[in-house]
Amino acid sequence: MHLSSYPFWGVGAGILALIFAVYFASSVLKKNPGNAKMQEISKAIQEGAMAFLNREYRTLVPIVVVIFFILWWGKQWPTAVSFLCGSLLSAVAGYIGMSITTRANTRTTEAARTSLNKALGVSFRGGAVMGLSVAGLGLLGVSILYLIFKSPEIINSFAFGASAVALFARVGGGIYTKAADVGADLVGKVEAGIPEDDPRNPATIADNVGDNVGDTAGMGADLFESYAASTIAAMLVGFTTYRTISQGLPGVMLPLLLGAAGLVATIIAAFFVRTGENANPQGALNRGLWGTNILTAIAAYGLVQWLLPASIRVQGVTVTPNGVFVAILAGLVVNVLIGLLTEYYTSNQKKPAQSIAKASETGAATNIIAGLAIGLKSTALPVLVICAAIYVSFASAGIFGIAMAAMAMLSTAGMVVAIDSFGPVADNAGGIAEMAELEPNVRKTTDKLDSVGNTTAAVAKGFAIGSAALTALALFNAFADLAHLRTINILVPKTIIGVFIGAAVPFLFSSFAMQAVGKAAFEMIGEVRRQFKEIPGIMEGTGKPDYRACVDISTKAALREMIVPGLLAVVTPILVGFLLGKDAMGGYLAGGTVSGLLLAIFMANAGGAWDNAKKYIEAGNLGGKGTPTHAAAVIGDTVGDPFKDTSGPSLNALIKVMGTISLIIAPFLH
Amino acid sequence: MHLSSYPFWGVGAGILALIFAVYFASSVLKKNPGNAKMQEISKAIQEGAMAFLNREYRTLVPIVVVIFFILWWGKQWPTAVSFLCGSLLSAVAGYIGMSITTRANTRTTEAARTSLNKALGVSFRGGAVMGLSVAGLGLLGVSILYLIFKSPEIINSFAFGASAVALFARVGGGIYTKAADVGADLVGKVEAGIPEDDPRNPATIADNVGDNVGDTAGMGADLFESYAASTIAAMLVGFTTYRTISQGLPGVMLPLLLGAAGLVATIIAAFFVRTGENANPQGALNRGLWGTNILTAIAAYGLVQWLLPASIRVQGVTVTPNGVFVAILAGLVVNVLIGLLTEYYTSNQKKPAQSIAKASETGAATNIIAGLAIGLKSTALPVLVICAAIYVSFASAGIFGIAMAAMAMLSTAGMVVAIDSFGPVADNAGGIAEMAELEPNVRKTTDKLDSVGNTTAAVAKGFAIGSAALTALALFNAFADLAHLRTINILVPKTIIGVFIGAAVPFLFSSFAMQAVGKAAFEMIGEVRRQFKEIPGIMEGTGKPDYRACVDISTKAALREMIVPGLLAVVTPILVGFLLGKDAMGGYLAGGTVSGLLLAIFMANAGGAWDNAKKYIEAGNLGGKGTPTHAAAVIGDTVGDPFKDTSGPSLNALIKVMGTISLIIAPFLH
Repeated sequence: MHLSSYPFWGVGAGILALIFAVYFASSVLKKNPGNAKMQEISKAIQEGAMAFLNREYRTLVPIVVVIFFILWWGKQWPTAVSFLCGSLLSAVAGYIGMSITTRANTRTTEAARTSLNKALGVSFRGGAVMGLSVAGLGLLGVSILYLIFKSPEIINSFAFGASAVALFARVGGGIYTKAADVGADLVGKVEAGIPEDDPRNPATIADNVGDNVGDTAGMGADLFESYAASTIAAMLVGFTTYRTISQGLPGVMLPLLLGAAGLVATIIAAFFVRTGENANPQGALNRGLWGTNILTAIAAYGLVQWLLPASIRVQGVTVTPNGVFVAILAGLVVNVLIGLLTEYYTSNQKKPAQSIAKASETGAATNIIAGLAIGLKSTALPVLVICAAIYVSFASAGIFGIAMAAMAMLSTAGMVVAIDSFGPVADNAGGIAEMAELEPNVRKTTDKLDSVGNTTAAVAKGFAIGSAALTALALFNAFADLAHLRTINILVPKTIIGVFIGAAVPFLFSSFAMQAVGKAAFEMIGEVRRQFKEIPGIMEGTGKPDYRACVDISTKAALREMIVPGLLAVVTPILVGFLLGKDAMGGYLAGGTVSGLLLAIFMANAGGAWDNAKKYIEAGNLGGKGTPTHAAAVIGDTVGDPFKDTSGPSLNALIKVMGTISLIIAPFLH
Repeated sequence: MHLSSYPFWGVGAGILALIFAVYFASSVLKKNPGNAKMQEISKAIQEGAMAFLNREYRTLVPIVVVIFFILWWGKQWPTAVSFLCGSLLSAVAGYIGMSITTRANTRTTEAARTSLNKALGVSFRGGAVMGLSVAGLGLLGVSILYLIFKSPEIINSFAFGASAVALFARVGGGIYTKAADVGADLVGKVEAGIPEDDPRNPATIADNVGDNVGDTAGMGADLFESYAASTIAAMLVGFTTYRTISQGLPGVMLPLLLGAAGLVATIIAAFFVRTGENANPQGALNRGLWGTNILTAIAAYGLVQWLLPASIRVQGVTVTPNGVFVAILAGLVVNVLIGLLTEYYTSNQKKPAQSIAKASETGAATNIIAGLAIGLKSTALPVLVICAAIYVSFASAGIFGIAMAAMAMLSTAGMVVAIDSFGPVADNAGGIAEMAELEPNVRKTTDKLDSVGNTTAAVAKGFAIGSAALTALALFNAFADLAHLRTINILVPKTIIGVFIGAAVPFLFSSFAMQAVGKAAFEMIGEVRRQFKEIPGIMEGTGKPDYRACVDISTKAALREMIVPGLLAVVTPILVGFLLGKDAMGGYLAGGTVSGLLLAIFMANAGGAWDNAKKYIEAGNLGGKGTPTHAAAVIGDTVGDPFKDTSGPSLNALIKVMGTISLIIAPFLH
């Protein structure tokens, strides 16, 4: 078999992943969906989620079409087609995944009536459909396009297509979920005094929809993009590195085959996810994650020995198979370390969140100050981990090492998305148990899963941020390659201006995202208040709230408010590139990546820590629920919501879209 | 007169400034200090402030001595002596200024009994003593050292000495002022329900001391450092630029003479500061500021024509006298624009602060989110202004243009410090009127001055941040010069690692500073509560609170807590430089400057906007004092306190100390 036909392995692994996605989906759908009430609720969530997705995609159509024609006109049709494929496949992955997770929720609830393990099985397999679709379609798309066009430079617009969808999915989904959440909480829980997920709350369906469109669809699109971008960036850099050997093919093929290996590892490790009835389900998910990392590492060792020449000297660095393997290991170690650090800074079992809880005793102000301080502090170690990975992977295999470290991280994306999407399924399952007024032990089982889901969500968030940073760095190097830049000199004023502007954009962008949540939540609050006032018998449970109206408000507001931050992200790099030139563009990418990474970690961890500080108090510590301490912690949690679920995750998409745009415009810059 | 003797003009202007400082001081001291009670209070504030300054300086002695001997051993004695002079003169400037501002307060109160203009005169002249000492001693120090050692490279450790003092003055002063403020407010105003500045509050003297050590001494040391660093950086770059003409002397002399011109302009413009009895005193201070800028610009035009050769070509840029003049103008325009932008984002007359007030209607959480969003957003335009200044000044006069733009900004530092130090004097004057129970119209007059003081403080803060950024940039270029770096290539992994680490440090540093305030405030709260409980008759006004105990707690806590962030700031650049080399050091400076600048603007403006949102409500809007809206706004204000008065200002010192350290270690790096 000739080297150039190796992408068929990528196609094969992608198809295999999709086959298993279908298998997991059918095994979920075969499960009992519960009683009529449960099905009704699940259906409402599902309809709301799919309606949002549909309208989101429809909003994107004109943007995608315009870019498509610009690319066709400015580059060639293969670039335009690759872009279109990236957008389409990202949308398809989101569509498939969401349609299953929103069906898995009620089946998880039903399974929780009899068994924790069964409930875990249903919810995890629901999430795995998303995970396998994301990674499978990502690898399939890149592999097929490469087989057709034979050039990583042409197909890099596949990543751009994916990043356009991811940007709006992250921003729109983030606004949606928090508008619904804040609206439901502020009027329902605080003003009307009814519990979370109470069926009398008109915003409760919207809130559950939000969990899906934010955490599942948003995260899916985010990692689809990272996956595509890091694969293509590694192929680009691999091509340059091995230019002198078999026309660069070893370097181009390694990322594809590592992706294939990671997918197979994910499928195998998915079967490790099972738990005893009295065990902590966290263990099961950890086995899945560790399994994927270890199997990928083993496969990577075989791949580098088989594919790569014994030794090659590039730009002063000697690249050997073992060196590349060390770089890949560095990427996988980042996976693990960033997850652990995120958990440390946000878990309610650990000191940081508990210290925020403690600070709530002196009121909301000290709670906020403590949370901001923890968030700011929590940036240091992840950044050092990433720096260490850059250092090690470069020292062992040059720029190609850095690109492969990023690719290695992403090769486990299928599993990460699976355990991340599992969270909203479990969360929804609990909501359905509450709304359908099932026996309390059901909620207890789903709560166990939900609490695990919070941890895996934190781990996935750390993964998404860390991998976005490494991907952005790989894109940065790929940009320099395409723009024929051997140096990007920050002593040149234009470059440092680029750094300044690039670094300022994430600040402005997060501000827009946060204000968008504020506006959308404000509309939601008005609607919920209106329904409480105008629908007779709503509080007594005799009048039925108009869930659809709330779903509609979240949808419309999210789609409207995502436009400004989205355009900021897309237009600014183009302006900087064309007005100030390619050196400034390089500075812009560096500044944007660094400041975006720091803000994203700060916001995600502060938000997570505030959330868990509140949960720590609600678990009965420091006086428990109903105390002024708890009230202060609730304020912190509310502040943290747009931080961790809107601005923070959107920043991942931002720093990557900068990079994918830079690759597209690189040849045009002076 | 030979070019090399021009520094005598700097010496002359410095001495002139000190003569006027003495004149203003004596004119303040001649004024009536008021009745016995007023004098007693003023004396307590003065003693507390001087005691803090003494102990702060004493804490710094071992650090300064250690660095002194390291420099002597590692470089030469002139470097060590210059360093010592920088530390000493910064301390002396702070000492002189503080001893007058803390005497001007009660005299302002007394003057306010009869005339607004007289009260303005006393408080402004009190502040002007600080301003003229800072700029006068700065210029004097640099000029004399240059006359002795004849090399900007040797005397750059003068700036390092100044920055070591500034770092600890900013951090320590920032912690002091907010610990006292939060302690006084939380127990006094909120728990005990007594008004601000009530003599029954044991922390009230500490609070007034805090205004002086934070705003006056901290800002003074900060701008002394910027002044010294930007002058020396401009001399270094000027030397390289004009190397071929009279041994670089024109480029070395211009910064010194521009400094001299700025000082004379400041002295002249100080006499413009007078107001009608019914006019807004803001107008008077604006005249002072505008006067200084315009006179400096006119003088600058003359200087460049006289000193600089008609045209010289350096690194591809043609530098002409007119080009340098444009660069100087760019710096002065930044002065004005950054001030206006800061005012826009923080004034209670403007939309941003009012929108935060409006958001307080739905509670503390929305108030906090709104404030954070405004703060994040407010970074964009100042960054663009700075980028425009970099662009214009480089385009018109190359790297020397950038350095001269920074120098031009700082040439007005005397006036900026004067109008900034005026604020705490007016604030203290109001406190004394309250504590001495004077007739209400006195407080009304001092309130008018205080409100103007808040605006000028905001303007000065913007100035301090903007000038710190330009100074850091000038230091960055000077570093590259000394380290013989023609490129700092961010495509080299070590460099980008430097950027990442440099950018993370301001996040970690602010976190430490905020947590320090938390700890110090916690001790203060305990002490105030103890006194309320244990001192009989304290609430009835028959028992006397132990002010000294509170002053002591703030002092000790500030000195203890400033060590960790201070060491972080000093040790990290040294580690990066020696472990990763000079490219990484360059990346570190760029990353640290950019992220420090953005965080500083974010924190200063968010804090200022929260403060003024509260004041807007207290002025009777949205229901006024005592409403839940007001309570929410108070929480925002409390969160903003460590932002705007501790972390934010400390970041200025941080980004400059990075730069001055890099200049010292540059020759040792590989």
